[in-house]
Amino acid sequence: MAAVEAEFCAYFQQAVELIGRRWCGAITRTLMPGPLRFSELERSIPAVSARALTQRLRELEAEGIVARSVEPTSPVRVRYELTEKGRALDAAVAELERWAHDWLAPAGHAHR
Amino acid sequence: MAAVEAEFCAYFQQAVELIGRRWCGAITRTLMPGPLRFSELERSIPAVSARALTQRLRELEAEGIVARSVEPTSPVRVRYELTEKGRALDAAVAELERWAHDWLAPAGHAHR
Repeated sequence: MAAVEAEFCAYFQQAVELIGRRWCGAITRTLMPGPLRFSELERSIPAVSARALTQRLRELEAEGIVARSVEPTSPVRVRYELTEKGRALDAAVAELERWAHDWLAPAGHAHR
Repeated sequence: MAAVEAEFCAYFQQAVELIGRRWCGAITRTLMPGPLRFSELERSIPAVSARALTQRLRELEAEGIVARSVEPTSPVRVRYELTEKGRALDAAVAELERWAHDWLAPAGHAHR
């Protein structure tokens, strides 16, 4: 029926499951402008629990998307930032956000 | 810490949850080149069950991403295609695929 059938792509599947995992898209988008502390991240994503955020950050760290560093203050402060691999998601995040504003937001809602 | 904290975006969250829902990204990507019949879609996405595919297609139809049409053949044939809203996801799908090939595929794996 279609002239060309898209071949299944396991890498695309892996990427879409990663970004689509609960809160992972929001965390990646929220860290795009720069590093944040845990409490700042928590405040930036309404409805995420500290436990869920911790779990997702660990997964994103294990996948090389997020890097965690400890500042030698007292008390120590932990900050999270995107790695090069994480920052490379900027175009995908921006396009998804553009689509969301074009198609999900009420007409006249400004695209930030 | 960051100069600018990204404000939480409910529309982005909705978009990322939609595309990230099991098989929805794959279905959208597979339909990008053009309409397909159910059996063609099923064949194009390894490991998806007929039941899961039916369910996801219904959801995508309810969300206005996919349109279903019945061809008056005997037996009738059902075809699925992206709506304008669904086709508008092409840039986001392409950027996510590019990222997947750049960062998840083994080095030297060609980007189709």
